[in-house]
Amino acid sequence: MRAQIKISLKKDVLDPQGRAIKKALHQLGFSEISEVRQGKYFEVDIDDSLELMASKVVERMCQQLLANPVVETYSYELVD
Amino acid sequence: MRAQIKISLKKDVLDPQGRAIKKALHQLGFSEISEVRQGKYFEVDIDDSLELMASKVVERMCQQLLANPVVETYSYELVD
Repeated sequence: MRAQIKISLKKDVLDPQGRAIKKALHQLGFSEISEVRQGKYFEVDIDDSLELMASKVVERMCQQLLANPVVETYSYELVD
Repeated sequence: MRAQIKISLKKDVLDPQGRAIKKALHQLGFSEISEVRQGKYFEVDIDDSLELMASKVVERMCQQLLANPVVETYSYELVD
C-alpha cells in the first residue's frame, strides 16, 4: 500500500518561498491568489502485510524523519 | 477556497532524494518501506468569487509555474 504524506509549515511560521511563488503568480496575472504556502510531499510504498499497523508506522516516520515537529505539521492518506 | 496541490516526479524519472530518504528510513529500522518518492506540496488560497473557474486557474498555475511538465505530474483538490 502507499502512504501519501503532506507536510506543511505551521501557520505562524514565515514562508519566504511561498511568498516568492505568490509574487511570481501575481506577475503572471493570477491576481486571484491571496496566499501560497509551500510544503513537502512524499509517496511511500509500504509492505501490505502491515495492514492496520501502517498508520502507526507512517506516524512514526513523520515524527522521526520526514517532518520537523517544531515548525511543521503533517497529514497523510493510505491508498491501495 | 484553498487548492491543495501535489506535485510528483514522473515514474521514469530518477529521484535521488527519495532514494536517500528510503535509505535513512531503513537505517532507522523502517524495513517495511520499499520505495520513497519526494515531491512538492502547495496550499494556494484563491478568491472565492472564482467558483467554477477555480480548477481551470489551478491547472494553469501548475502548467505555467508550479510544475515542470517534462518531468513532473500534478494533482490537486479544492477545499473550502
